[in-house]
Amino acid sequence: MFNKRIKIKELLSFEPNNQQVTVMGWVRTFRNNQFIALNDGSTNTNLQIFVELGKYDDEFLKKITTSTALKVIGVVIPSLGKGQKLEIKAGSIEILGESDAEKYPLQPKKHSLEFLREIAHLRFRTNTFGAVFRVRHSLAFAVHKFFNDKGFVYMHTPIITASDAEGAGEMFRVSTLPLDNPPKNEDGSINFKEDFFGRSTNLTVSGQLEGELAATAFGDIYTFGPTFRAENSNTARHLAEFWMIEPEMAFYDLEDNANLAEEFIKYIVKFAMDNNREDLEFLAQRLVDEEKQLTQDKRSEMGLIEKLEFVLNNNFERLTYTEAIDILKESNHNKKKKFQYPVTGWGMDLQSEHERYLVEKHFKKPVILTNYPREIKAFYMRQNEDGKTVAAMDILAPGIGEIAGGSQREERLEKLEQRMREMNVPVAQLWWYLDTRRFGTVPHAGFGLGFERMVQFVTGMSNIRDVIAFPRTPKSAEF
Amino acid sequence: MFNKRIKIKELLSFEPNNQQVTVMGWVRTFRNNQFIALNDGSTNTNLQIFVELGKYDDEFLKKITTSTALKVIGVVIPSLGKGQKLEIKAGSIEILGESDAEKYPLQPKKHSLEFLREIAHLRFRTNTFGAVFRVRHSLAFAVHKFFNDKGFVYMHTPIITASDAEGAGEMFRVSTLPLDNPPKNEDGSINFKEDFFGRSTNLTVSGQLEGELAATAFGDIYTFGPTFRAENSNTARHLAEFWMIEPEMAFYDLEDNANLAEEFIKYIVKFAMDNNREDLEFLAQRLVDEEKQLTQDKRSEMGLIEKLEFVLNNNFERLTYTEAIDILKESNHNKKKKFQYPVTGWGMDLQSEHERYLVEKHFKKPVILTNYPREIKAFYMRQNEDGKTVAAMDILAPGIGEIAGGSQREERLEKLEQRMREMNVPVAQLWWYLDTRRFGTVPHAGFGLGFERMVQFVTGMSNIRDVIAFPRTPKSAEF
Repeated sequence: MFNKRIKIKELLSFEPNNQQVTVMGWVRTFRNNQFIALNDGSTNTNLQIFVELGKYDDEFLKKITTSTALKVIGVVIPSLGKGQKLEIKAGSIEILGESDAEKYPLQPKKHSLEFLREIAHLRFRTNTFGAVFRVRHSLAFAVHKFFNDKGFVYMHTPIITASDAEGAGEMFRVSTLPLDNPPKNEDGSINFKEDFFGRSTNLTVSGQLEGELAATAFGDIYTFGPTFRAENSNTARHLAEFWMIEPEMAFYDLEDNANLAEEFIKYIVKFAMDNNREDLEFLAQRLVDEEKQLTQDKRSEMGLIEKLEFVLNNNFERLTYTEAIDILKESNHNKKKKFQYPVTGWGMDLQSEHERYLVEKHFKKPVILTNYPREIKAFYMRQNEDGKTVAAMDILAPGIGEIAGGSQREERLEKLEQRMREMNVPVAQLWWYLDTRRFGTVPHAGFGLGFERMVQFVTGMSNIRDVIAFPRTPKSAEF
Repeated sequence: MFNKRIKIKELLSFEPNNQQVTVMGWVRTFRNNQFIALNDGSTNTNLQIFVELGKYDDEFLKKITTSTALKVIGVVIPSLGKGQKLEIKAGSIEILGESDAEKYPLQPKKHSLEFLREIAHLRFRTNTFGAVFRVRHSLAFAVHKFFNDKGFVYMHTPIITASDAEGAGEMFRVSTLPLDNPPKNEDGSINFKEDFFGRSTNLTVSGQLEGELAATAFGDIYTFGPTFRAENSNTARHLAEFWMIEPEMAFYDLEDNANLAEEFIKYIVKFAMDNNREDLEFLAQRLVDEEKQLTQDKRSEMGLIEKLEFVLNNNFERLTYTEAIDILKESNHNKKKKFQYPVTGWGMDLQSEHERYLVEKHFKKPVILTNYPREIKAFYMRQNEDGKTVAAMDILAPGIGEIAGGSQREERLEKLEQRMREMNVPVAQLWWYLDTRRFGTVPHAGFGLGFERMVQFVTGMSNIRDVIAFPRTPKSAEF
């Protein structure tokens, strides 16, 4: 057994009393051959190790540089330094692994986020990414806890799928056929019967349709898994591979759906606030520092913590798409032609700038927009009585824009089939989906929340590539 | 708001007292035009709805058949029937969705598991799969709770990857290049620079290497995500797409690793025992019924519940590969040449039959085998002082065989690079992996647990296709 250590996060809550402890971690800094700042990843707060002068020879001390791995046995004593209650007076120091200070890319100074993306395998060792990924962890755990406590069943829907059921965009092909000489049919087309699954397959864009199958048996289910878009979007908001949470609930209408989504978002934000206060405060300060280079009008109106508390303490604004169009049309922003995409009127698809105007300028809080024109929404959304709109909802968050989208589903077989034919969705191929409408169909609803956008919202990171460990984007699949 | 219902699982704990309640669910059976057995997926126990004779006309009652969806408002009364404490006396019954009894594939009788696989979109509505997937949910939640409570960070490692680092088997290609006319280089080879990621990419076989990157920053991390094998194995133990849990711990040696794995497995089994007792008892009885068709010697020696309790209450047997070979060689089973693959001696790879002999016949409990010959294990496993073995471990479970595999990792840069060259692993391509050994390397270890095998172990389901919602296997990617 080697792992007889105490984690620094736990140790920092001790009352110093000469207790003997063993700690292990990596050196962040070593000052005056006397003070080692040790970090083990459990918290951003370094543990100070006090090294008595003369106890170790210079040859040994020279090896203690940034990123050197140490095992230290010592006693916990009160710290004379400010900002820390305790420190360790080292009894023995063992070097587990050296680090060549000349070659180590992460020096104890500020590095740009762009540079850190290039060394994503090491960026977890910085305070920023330590905080981001501990918060990401807490949010993920909160997702599971929220749904488990409510009796939802976690479903793993397939990653490899034969259907582009949602029509949500371009997909990645999954195949074992040789690209340089694929088997062909007599007419020259590719013979997918020879492929691994005996048919053409892709990476999933959504687990919703399969989720509906399970919801119409278990009542309430959710998914939390990776989804994919082969879109050539090189932006700060898009990933080719990202994680999505998709709850699906039988016996829910659109209002039930919106209620659950709001409760859910508040729950996971609160969970991070309760469990990651120190990390969030660090990230709040980071955001302030980063925005110093911006002009006043470009800076966030609220601090990060303040923003999260505001979300927790206020109801999300709910309005219809139709009402939103009216607000946008009448806005000074529109009249002064400040939108890049002009507000052409009812029926238009909202752009990110419109959504952010509503959220950040007009309402100044999260917004749930409902009842969109059916022409701009998917085939499975429930058609409203007006013949023009569907029971859709988008949830818009300050600084992010769309963070979740959902709908009540069309549970009426005839209306669903008709809409599928109108939109050229292959009815026969989706026989299994339609079976849920044939055999005891029920009102049901669900939504999808992009997990990385949620992590961005809570951490204040402006680029989505900085909230997932190893981002997959066009022309980049490093690590 | 539509979702003003109480779930049946909760309702069944009530004391009947004429409370008015609303329930929604699907009809399982309707007896004598009087007794509806309603199920909402929260539990296998149906709720009895008592329908007063003469209250509804025959036309209406005729529509109430298996799988009809109902909304029932009524009062909770004591039940006169046996096996149930309470029932609902229906005040109003609303049919939410009809079901054509002639066409509905799931009749209230026993269907074969093979048949149910063909209608996997409906099999959640059976008692067996209701129980299996509720247990699967609990196990998944227990995974997250176990690691969260211990301060591990949940990492989402990439699904799409450019490296076959582990060399774990055949992989699925991920591409957006057109199969019928891919771009080519001058020498006729495929020009992957034109592919989405600018290089050749595959679906991951393991998140371990990326997990190690995070562990050497956070200390303790885990992954829980889908992994893939493009192996043409049409067996009851193999899936092309399955979920894996991979914890990775800095400052752990092999013994620490085995301790954690044993604690972890016991924790999630106990969680299911505590939270899914009713479902497990149902599955235990199902197993007894299924095994009735087998001869006595083929039946499980223990019942399902008994087996799980046994696992909780006994230490896993730990021994070295070398000791295991001796036991196998000396066994009567071997001497009577009952193994399909003879025990040739030290250095051989153990087959499933050998593992199961050790677990089921010799020790009769879970076994952790350690220190395998280095020739049959991966490049990243730590080389032992004997020059012949590596610090590997496999965990073997009764009825399943290998359920988890892991190792202490080789943290010494020179030894690791040497082993990579010997095994033709591309050293230059894995520069980022080797960086963890260059900059503050530490002893560390981890393991991978196949989630579906774990679900099989706990539910007693003998075919792995029956514990994942929509199995992906050769020539099959339905739903």
